[in-house]
Amino acid sequence: MRSLAILDSTLREGEQFIKTFFTLEQRVMIVRLLDRLGVTFIEVPSPVSSPETREAIEAICALNLRSHVVAHVRCVEADVQAALDTGVYGLNLFFGTSNELRSYSHGRKIEQIAHDAVPLIRRIREAGRYVRFSAEDAFRSDLVDLLTVFDAVVDAGVERIGLPDTVGIATPRQVDRLVSLIANRYPNVGIEFHGHNDTGCAIANTISAFEAGADCLDVTVMGIGERNGIASLSGIISQLYIHYPDLLAAYDLTQLVELDQYVADCLNINIPYNMPITAPSAFTHRAGVHTKAVLRNPHAYEILNPTDFGVVRHVDVGSRFTGRYAVGHRAVSLGLQLTSEEIAQLTQALKERAERGSLNDEEVNTFILAWYEEKGSLVWER
Amino acid sequence: MRSLAILDSTLREGEQFIKTFFTLEQRVMIVRLLDRLGVTFIEVPSPVSSPETREAIEAICALNLRSHVVAHVRCVEADVQAALDTGVYGLNLFFGTSNELRSYSHGRKIEQIAHDAVPLIRRIREAGRYVRFSAEDAFRSDLVDLLTVFDAVVDAGVERIGLPDTVGIATPRQVDRLVSLIANRYPNVGIEFHGHNDTGCAIANTISAFEAGADCLDVTVMGIGERNGIASLSGIISQLYIHYPDLLAAYDLTQLVELDQYVADCLNINIPYNMPITAPSAFTHRAGVHTKAVLRNPHAYEILNPTDFGVVRHVDVGSRFTGRYAVGHRAVSLGLQLTSEEIAQLTQALKERAERGSLNDEEVNTFILAWYEEKGSLVWER
Repeated sequence: MRSLAILDSTLREGEQFIKTFFTLEQRVMIVRLLDRLGVTFIEVPSPVSSPETREAIEAICALNLRSHVVAHVRCVEADVQAALDTGVYGLNLFFGTSNELRSYSHGRKIEQIAHDAVPLIRRIREAGRYVRFSAEDAFRSDLVDLLTVFDAVVDAGVERIGLPDTVGIATPRQVDRLVSLIANRYPNVGIEFHGHNDTGCAIANTISAFEAGADCLDVTVMGIGERNGIASLSGIISQLYIHYPDLLAAYDLTQLVELDQYVADCLNINIPYNMPITAPSAFTHRAGVHTKAVLRNPHAYEILNPTDFGVVRHVDVGSRFTGRYAVGHRAVSLGLQLTSEEIAQLTQALKERAERGSLNDEEVNTFILAWYEEKGSLVWER
Repeated sequence: MRSLAILDSTLREGEQFIKTFFTLEQRVMIVRLLDRLGVTFIEVPSPVSSPETREAIEAICALNLRSHVVAHVRCVEADVQAALDTGVYGLNLFFGTSNELRSYSHGRKIEQIAHDAVPLIRRIREAGRYVRFSAEDAFRSDLVDLLTVFDAVVDAGVERIGLPDTVGIATPRQVDRLVSLIANRYPNVGIEFHGHNDTGCAIANTISAFEAGADCLDVTVMGIGERNGIASLSGIISQLYIHYPDLLAAYDLTQLVELDQYVADCLNINIPYNMPITAPSAFTHRAGVHTKAVLRNPHAYEILNPTDFGVVRHVDVGSRFTGRYAVGHRAVSLGLQLTSEEIAQLTQALKERAERGSLNDEEVNTFILAWYEEKGSLVWER
């Protein structure tokens, strides 16, 4: 079995999301939950960001988690030294290699990038720490430029190279091609992928990178990050659960919902409905065709088992699209015994009521019981 | 240039989202906005759902939109007749072909599915309407079963066949393989794809289907639908904008944000931060490395031009990760002339303040002006 490391960057990339501001207490709680879940790496910002960030990093390192704490650091001597002065397991160096970033971010030529990075990598290795080098904006970088830099950093002793899709431009096919090429050229180092979501393909691109040879995948809780964020932890876990379940053997999947909910609370937002597994709607079924089949066998419209994540399925009965099977099922659960004809009448009545607005579970129950009572009194009157 | 139809199913799939209840007025407003944007098809529920739904469909047909209105209808005689009795352009028939849906949804054998569908397709064609047949849960269906049904419906005269990933299990690679195979076997009919998001790949799968030969892609506004929904309109537009811009020539992209915002308001939710183009954060930049480059040239960290969508970029200056370039830029915009040394001091002061919580634009401006004033008075005192 291939090994796979998940790197969670909620404290680094996730703090670049406009709504994020984590206190020290929140940072500590998040890494505790990530550690319980079982991620391999926890990425933190550069300690030069501020004295408070450096103190938070020290506090996190002092927790002695199973997860490795790695700092995301510019290829600048002062930044590297500051990170080495903390207790982090390793450093994730980054340097923009595309024309766009070379021109408008740091202004360095390709030769200078390698020249700046190599001594820092040697120094980190000599200090006995893990080191990764990422070519920021790899998917807009010229291939010769990319390989020139990677040749140099691999030669200098990096343990992993990173291919971030910094601007969210890549397609799964492009990721497959580039990661395969890089994996063939550098068989003795690991490969990391970091995918932004500007065109909605962050999760697909990240899984494509794994299938092409990447062994470390970047995520954040709920995918928060710059602009539209990156691949979400729950999205990547849903993919692994379906296609590579053995890779999740050491994970405690029941932590996932609590983790997403905790970060959502920190940000004062709801978990988005499009978040696999953890969205409140992820295991909710509405249309009559769906609810009928799911009540007979959930696998009909569910490929993930909610109980594996400590989540409860919800069958919505109170919409204008409700169906007889689900309504009859609910009536039985309320202790009513109805004929097929009665279920059809009740469904019709409920649909008519739902045309003035959907009903929640409690309202549905109240409606059904009231309908039954009224019907009984009508029968009585006859 | 290949042609591509976008089918919006906000009024059908989108109403299966737990939070959705559209009034007639809202349904009409949504289709007007979709029509202005330029989608090819607008999918509505089956008119047998309720008298109110049938009336809404009639009202929408009476608008005489450029977009074609198509009804999503079971392969049941009464449902087909009810749809033919409205003014819809065509019918989208569906029938579950996987073992899971055959066993727990409708209980029909494969031969029965073809037997039920063929006379209905002939009838719709004879009525002069467009007809598509979808094999629900195509990606868990046995290939022989799938081809048996498609052979029969293509022979019966359908104009398009549909391959929905009903449970969100497919990968871009699987979509590529199955759609390619189907496109080769049935060169004279169109192919539609409908991708659910349970494992986070709806957008990537939908684009993969197009690249493999599909000519009609299903979306909803913000991707709302059963469970985690389907591909979002803005996600598919972001993909086409980057990779196939000619296909968007007839679209009015400035309608997109208004449309997403309108539906979000109907649902009483915010547009999720992970929504390409339309999320308030989609063109927001925070980290110092990012803001510096974006202020020099937005293309450094933006692959979509916000002005093409009538949206304004936002450079966040008030976080703990702010940088000197962005702070200096803001100071200039406030009419202040500062030396490099002063900008460094101001940035330091702002970062310290932001460690107690991020500042919004107005608070940043107030902070900078107060800092400048205080500094001036200090100089004065010296």
